[in-house]
Amino acid sequence: MDYAKEALRKHKELRGKIALALKDTLDTRDKMSVYYTPGVGAVSTHIAEHPDEVRDYTWRGNSVAVVSDGSAVLGLGNIGPLAALPVMEGKAMLFKHFAAIDAVPIVLDVHSADEIVAAVKAIAPSFGGINLEDIAAPICFEVEERLKTELSIPVMHDDQHGTAVVTLAGLINATKVTNRNLNTSRIVIVGSGAAGVAITKLLHTYAPGAGILAVDSKGIISRDRADLNDEKQKLLAFTNANNLSGSLSDALKGADIFIGVSKPGLLTGNMIKTMAANPIIFAMANPIPEIMPEEALAAGAAVMATGRSDFANQVNNSLAFPGIFRGALDNRVRTITDDHKIAAAQVIASLVTDPSPNEVIPSPFTPGLVEAIADVIR
Amino acid sequence: MDYAKEALRKHKELRGKIALALKDTLDTRDKMSVYYTPGVGAVSTHIAEHPDEVRDYTWRGNSVAVVSDGSAVLGLGNIGPLAALPVMEGKAMLFKHFAAIDAVPIVLDVHSADEIVAAVKAIAPSFGGINLEDIAAPICFEVEERLKTELSIPVMHDDQHGTAVVTLAGLINATKVTNRNLNTSRIVIVGSGAAGVAITKLLHTYAPGAGILAVDSKGIISRDRADLNDEKQKLLAFTNANNLSGSLSDALKGADIFIGVSKPGLLTGNMIKTMAANPIIFAMANPIPEIMPEEALAAGAAVMATGRSDFANQVNNSLAFPGIFRGALDNRVRTITDDHKIAAAQVIASLVTDPSPNEVIPSPFTPGLVEAIADVIR
Repeated sequence: MDYAKEALRKHKELRGKIALALKDTLDTRDKMSVYYTPGVGAVSTHIAEHPDEVRDYTWRGNSVAVVSDGSAVLGLGNIGPLAALPVMEGKAMLFKHFAAIDAVPIVLDVHSADEIVAAVKAIAPSFGGINLEDIAAPICFEVEERLKTELSIPVMHDDQHGTAVVTLAGLINATKVTNRNLNTSRIVIVGSGAAGVAITKLLHTYAPGAGILAVDSKGIISRDRADLNDEKQKLLAFTNANNLSGSLSDALKGADIFIGVSKPGLLTGNMIKTMAANPIIFAMANPIPEIMPEEALAAGAAVMATGRSDFANQVNNSLAFPGIFRGALDNRVRTITDDHKIAAAQVIASLVTDPSPNEVIPSPFTPGLVEAIADVIR
Repeated sequence: MDYAKEALRKHKELRGKIALALKDTLDTRDKMSVYYTPGVGAVSTHIAEHPDEVRDYTWRGNSVAVVSDGSAVLGLGNIGPLAALPVMEGKAMLFKHFAAIDAVPIVLDVHSADEIVAAVKAIAPSFGGINLEDIAAPICFEVEERLKTELSIPVMHDDQHGTAVVTLAGLINATKVTNRNLNTSRIVIVGSGAAGVAITKLLHTYAPGAGILAVDSKGIISRDRADLNDEKQKLLAFTNANNLSGSLSDALKGADIFIGVSKPGLLTGNMIKTMAANPIIFAMANPIPEIMPEEALAAGAAVMATGRSDFANQVNNSLAFPGIFRGALDNRVRTITDDHKIAAAQVIASLVTDPSPNEVIPSPFTPGLVEAIADVIR
């Protein structure tokens, strides 16, 4: 199937892909009087007196805003809020399909951290949770941190944490398959945008003994670099203990695990050959990975994962965010913590009953997936 | 039916009354690839190149945000955004039921004009129109004016203009029934909040020869008053030509029409007896009108309207806003003008085939109502 052509055709035919639904008909004056005036006044009065019960009397207890300013959309970059809308509608579809959550796409015409935070805080009473999406680094970090502190509903930037959770899930199984201990592995993470930073932090939290090198377009992130933004500076607290400098090739020598959230084609078979035996390669650049699976496997990769649905082991955020938000809404979780993310990754990993090189990550259509994750978000 | 009790029961049973619906299923990897990545990228790229076509490829062309800060909710006053949410959900239901519009309730945790304007502008790319609702006067006037100027999508504060349109529709028929010419009538409008100001302006535009007195809680609005806010000052440009002072009783002597959007019980039968013969009484305070119909009719009222569904002639905003927004969305109208409002009022009035004292306003369930209004919003 030509997905691009079919997408244009279906989106135009349907005029988007989501709509409002009513939970009851509204075809009599009595129903108008129950759902609107005067009856609704009693509901408003009740909520004014018992604000915590707003979740029981409105759709808020089951709703999430999917918020983007369109500054880092898919691999397309800063295409703005209007062009981001179909992606956010798609995300809303995933929320509904996988987790029965009523998600609303909100695309923002503001782009500074202050303005995004102000806009999301302003509309927050409308929703039970906030899924931040496709907001460029480094602004995304400040936006998420501030909203998590300043709002009383769960906030998660999915490009960071959804990706990190599924990556960790895949690595839990991939290390099993290759007889490794993640806590003693050498890991190279290429790409220091939203996903790269979040993966680095979560891996360090889960496996503090792992030796991690973070690499950006200029090479290994080290204390000697004068060009690091705040977020990259912070990575130095728990990466590159020996303060190595050099290129990606230098970083990879003897490494156990390559994790790419960067650019197509960065990794070569020759680099893989310099890694430890049976290396694990997660090449997640989209739509074209850092190295194609065929080439990586030919060069000795023992386990290969990408971001694509047409290869084995797709690192797909849809595995994580529906269950995480389902659990947060149902269990009244205000803050999604590292413990929640690790628990979610362990659940996802456990749903592969017999991990093998071709199956370290389950399908997002795995029965019981959302419920199992939701159950550990408490 | 005890509407309050039934409303509490149904809202809790259903956990609110709206939900997200998907226009197609999402049960295969192919569909995920069409509606989400990678297919959706083609749609985003297309919109980035042709921003005007966002309405054709997303739900934006059929969506309206119902925005409130909860500062003037029904007759309940400033109960805040959480308590306002069930009302905005109800409004969203009406949008969907009557006009097939996908409306989204947005309740705001900000309350100054600057902050409300900033929040609505920030989220505006997400929607095809903005329905402002239950925002207190006088802030509502500034908010609406600025948003109309600064946004390229239709913006309407329904408490002002929905009420004004339906009031004008009712008066068109009521003057017919009582053999009056609105343009030579004497009209007293009590209440200078959102609805009162908008009714006064629209009546003056439609019938510039009418003699209008605006009355607030302190009496007739006149040049001699030192306590008038900006909005009330502006009313003096086209009301009270003779600069009368005095009370509501003074204003009503010899008047043809009473329009109340104020407080329960303000109008007495004795005041009605001092009006012109066969006066028209629109007593729209909610839920208890300025005078009950029985008493007004006993005192000589020829036509009586209220805001309630359990009496004849309900001045119900649901008659106007669904068709106005349906037309604005379908006909790509950026600004809802006075001409649009007057045309809508004339359409509504025309749907009463044989106006009589008990029927000057049609039912919101009148077949063809929304389509007929939408057709004149061009």
